[in-house]
Amino acid sequence: MGKIYPLEMKKGMSVSDLVREYEKGVFGAGKIAEAVSLYKEMLEKECRIFLGFAGALVPAGLGKIIADLIRDDMVHVVVSTGANVTHDLIEAFGGSHLKGVQGEDSELREKGIDRIYDAFIEDRSFILFEEKIQEILKEIEPVMSVSDVLKEIGRKLNSSDSFVRQAYLKDVPVFVPALSDSILGLHLFLYSQECACQLDHVKDIGKIVELANISGRAGAIFLGGGVPKNFIFQAMLLSSSSFEYALQITTERPEYGGLSGATLEEAISWGKVSKDSKLCTVYCDATIAFPLIVAAVRDRC
Amino acid sequence: MGKIYPLEMKKGMSVSDLVREYEKGVFGAGKIAEAVSLYKEMLEKECRIFLGFAGALVPAGLGKIIADLIRDDMVHVVVSTGANVTHDLIEAFGGSHLKGVQGEDSELREKGIDRIYDAFIEDRSFILFEEKIQEILKEIEPVMSVSDVLKEIGRKLNSSDSFVRQAYLKDVPVFVPALSDSILGLHLFLYSQECACQLDHVKDIGKIVELANISGRAGAIFLGGGVPKNFIFQAMLLSSSSFEYALQITTERPEYGGLSGATLEEAISWGKVSKDSKLCTVYCDATIAFPLIVAAVRDRC
Amino acid sequence: MGKIYPLEMKKGMSVSDLVREYEKGVFGAGKIAEAVSLYKEMLEKECRIFLGFAGALVPAGLGKIIADLIRDDMVHVVVSTGANVTHDLIEAFGGSHLKGVQGEDSELREKGIDRIYDAFIEDRSFILFEEKIQEILKEIEPVMSVSDVLKEIGRKLNSSDSFVRQAYLKDVPVFVPALSDSILGLHLFLYSQECACQLDHVKDIGKIVELANISGRAGAIFLGGGVPKNFIFQAMLLSSSSFEYALQITTERPEYGGLSGATLEEAISWGKVSKDSKLCTVYCDATIAFPLIVAAVRDRC
Amino acid sequence: MGKIYPLEMKKGMSVSDLVREYEKGVFGAGKIAEAVSLYKEMLEKECRIFLGFAGALVPAGLGKIIADLIRDDMVHVVVSTGANVTHDLIEAFGGSHLKGVQGEDSELREKGIDRIYDAFIEDRSFILFEEKIQEILKEIEPVMSVSDVLKEIGRKLNSSDSFVRQAYLKDVPVFVPALSDSILGLHLFLYSQECACQLDHVKDIGKIVELANISGRAGAIFLGGGVPKNFIFQAMLLSSSSFEYALQITTERPEYGGLSGATLEEAISWGKVSKDSKLCTVYCDATIAFPLIVAAVRDRC
Repeated sequence: MGKIYPLEMKKGMSVSDLVREYEKGVFGAGKIAEAVSLYKEMLEKECRIFLGFAGALVPAGLGKIIADLIRDDMVHVVVSTGANVTHDLIEAFGGSHLKGVQGEDSELREKGIDRIYDAFIEDRSFILFEEKIQEILKEIEPVMSVSDVLKEIGRKLNSSDSFVRQAYLKDVPVFVPALSDSILGLHLFLYSQECACQLDHVKDIGKIVELANISGRAGAIFLGGGVPKNFIFQAMLLSSSSFEYALQITTERPEYGGLSGATLEEAISWGKVSKDSKLCTVYCDATIAFPLIVAAVRDRC
Repeated sequence: MGKIYPLEMKKGMSVSDLVREYEKGVFGAGKIAEAVSLYKEMLEKECRIFLGFAGALVPAGLGKIIADLIRDDMVHVVVSTGANVTHDLIEAFGGSHLKGVQGEDSELREKGIDRIYDAFIEDRSFILFEEKIQEILKEIEPVMSVSDVLKEIGRKLNSSDSFVRQAYLKDVPVFVPALSDSILGLHLFLYSQECACQLDHVKDIGKIVELANISGRAGAIFLGGGVPKNFIFQAMLLSSSSFEYALQITTERPEYGGLSGATLEEAISWGKVSKDSKLCTVYCDATIAFPLIVAAVRDRC
Repeated sequence: MGKIYPLEMKKGMSVSDLVREYEKGVFGAGKIAEAVSLYKEMLEKECRIFLGFAGALVPAGLGKIIADLIRDDMVHVVVSTGANVTHDLIEAFGGSHLKGVQGEDSELREKGIDRIYDAFIEDRSFILFEEKIQEILKEIEPVMSVSDVLKEIGRKLNSSDSFVRQAYLKDVPVFVPALSDSILGLHLFLYSQECACQLDHVKDIGKIVELANISGRAGAIFLGGGVPKNFIFQAMLLSSSSFEYALQITTERPEYGGLSGATLEEAISWGKVSKDSKLCTVYCDATIAFPLIVAAVRDRC
Repeated sequence: MGKIYPLEMKKGMSVSDLVREYEKGVFGAGKIAEAVSLYKEMLEKECRIFLGFAGALVPAGLGKIIADLIRDDMVHVVVSTGANVTHDLIEAFGGSHLKGVQGEDSELREKGIDRIYDAFIEDRSFILFEEKIQEILKEIEPVMSVSDVLKEIGRKLNSSDSFVRQAYLKDVPVFVPALSDSILGLHLFLYSQECACQLDHVKDIGKIVELANISGRAGAIFLGGGVPKNFIFQAMLLSSSSFEYALQITTERPEYGGLSGATLEEAISWGKVSKDSKLCTVYCDATIAFPLIVAAVRDRC
């Protein structure tokens, strides 16, 4: 129990200074400060850190932040949606995402531009993606786990901004339990019409359970909910461990019952996180909160 | 352009009466009325109706509503999360979900009770699930698409309240692109440790694309977002059709960029829905809005 | 602790039937059922019921629902925003609200149409309001409390759909602590340029505190938060009573710290509600939830 | 139309650097960057800046940020809730707000601690407030506008962290249209039982309309919605001007129809903002976004 001191904003502040000001306060500001401390503690205690992320973070420009965390040993296991992998590869192949495009959705359709709120992508980026991915798929073995396929893809990229590439370089597994639910998935289907191609999803369960079942400490970071959050948490159901740290940035809420909005405390009842775990939920747009938290954690390490 | 007339609530109203009152108004009330008309029109125009649902709707007791819609030819293709399938099977096997349980999450953990906001499930329901599902898996072929596995499981159930059962009876495919992300997925993994077991996710893409590629009209209904919403929409990317009707009930919002909260209009830019489609989004907890809409649609048909 | 039974939706259901189905479930559905029971119990225990409402409920067509609750002794004290009073009077004077108007905001501006999401009002309704209200103000005494002014205005109306009128007829006080923050407030200001006109806000505090300080039971119903919620709750700070029942329908959330989203439990720490009070929060658009709850309560009484 | 470049987070970043990274992106991050540019432009164009704020920002520690903006001529007119004024005075009188307090609401009640989500205040701070405010009230004239009362109170304070004090020092009016809806309001009522005390709310309407009716440019900043947002906007209804800039930080959403969540574009239809105005809405907890935006704006000026 302490006093709430007045936050003060001055010229020339660093992100660390800003977080120190947040720390004086409560509500979302207090939570950001708590999240920074929690992430820092996870790193100091040498946790194995599982990062799950959903939502269009790569189209929004946040892919490199994740790539750099992998590069710097600040994330050790990744669970992604198929869409974020697809868009990561699009950029690695030379395609791009746009902002500031004007027009109604029906006009965009005519111009060959696809919209993700205020991010946009041209059809030609998808055509480039198709060419490049079909080439790569030809060189891949017919039956593999999803994480192995992504490792093989990562091997063939040469963009250091790609999280799929960095994961390959650092031997960090990338799990995508719903890969068929993505444009990459559609291309795997098209490829499978010509050549044998079979993804082993079940094998990846074994792999993440093994990673969860560590002798040391495990920590989880969730950006949004969806499949990545559940897939990381459920790994603990078959493990003798449970998470000692968990941090989520979400905009959903618990009262509707979906896992995306569920409190981290709820996971205690399932044994996914331990009773004496340290938990922190930041209710905020991840494109605002995550860069800020990462910048502050980098400063403190 | 019309007048907003005062809504009037009286003793003895039917759900249809209530929706007629909503129709006089705007905001959420107006949207509910619009959703009822849209669903009714989808049925009248003999649309092929794709239902995607995410969030803990089956634990919340909404599984039978979906089962009955399948039974009555009001839904023709289903895309579910792995969790909703798991909980559907738990009930079909004789397990149950509970309400009104009191206690902290750590106390629940000790009592062997798992929490989903204010729904609960005892560990013994999961044990029952394990016994029954392992028996069924033994009788299933080693390589199948996910939808074929669920058809086989549906064949062996005898609960008419189960949507997996009703889908089997009506030959409605159930797609679960992220099956490995569920407790059913975990049991498939355990089973695969003993016996060959390989799920073909890619094959299901071909199957849903074929269903999407119809000569007649297609309509989509989304309860929540997540993988089911995207998997239904992306089927149109490989199809020459696009949805002429779409209805979503969601609590997420568009500004954070995730697909769960994306407007249906955005899907026009991707060609997932047609330019002149009829679209309706209801921003509401699906456990409130969906039963109400279904009851009113049943009344009007 | 009980079982969650599957909800079943059939042709020809009444609103009461629907709520009985909700009662089997959880999340929002369960809360609606709980809200119906709570409101019914408030009436049975002969609570003095304080209704606070914010948001554009009257433009949305919900004013008559409130008027009828006052008429039928189901609400005994009203706290409103100035906007809801203004729009109630506009309709009582013969003006109207519209729906289904198309056009950009700048086009609406040119057409003399003002927008409240998908409700609209023509400038001429405000001109009509000006004429009528200036006439009425001339006949009102120069110094009065806000609730007395509204009583005088109510006396001069002849629309039974107006909650201001019904409150006058039933001697239910209508408090509007932020009256100057409304178009009615602007007209009071214009009137005050010509004639003495002074609103006594402080007096109304005494009046609501006296109403709160009852020997019997008090209950509160909040549609949205804002000033009405706080003004009702703070009355208990100067009273020896506290609320034994409270029901809120809100779409805000607690984590940002604003009172609109605050849990009802928080009010226990302030002594605004009693420790053993019965509390229920429904997270839903009030235009959906409130008509439904009222219809069901009417059925059960 | 431009490319979305990957955001990069490095050790030692300033808040300005962070905002430059946000500027590369979209969704919330892009909006923060836009808000910084907008506020900077308001200052460069010498706008008269109206700041409205609702929600428990002062208990959360953000009062000094507002005080400093007033001190530095970065805000010229203030509209507050009664609660924020009350809590500002509590701190100016030597009381304080707390964080990190543990316990159920009924336990807090027994300990004499009142809760505002995770901010807390002891009853003794309210007792201190009562003593000090009753002293001050004795020295104030019986009939005054609310803004004049607050000016008189500001004159008697000696804390530079108080926004009420800074407003007095800089001759910035503080409007509180719902003053009676606050603990300060309750004390005015108690005081009025002994001595004549009459607040003129109507007079303040004239005052803000005059301020809105400027020859130069006007800009609005809203933290949350509620009465402060509406009171600032409605001033333009009686003015020949309209806002050329508006910036809001909100967590509400437009679809429920309340003004708190209304888009700024909607205000064009009412003539509150001009057709060619520059508008920016950040959907975020104001305790996170506002300090960040202020720090970056200070850096760029």
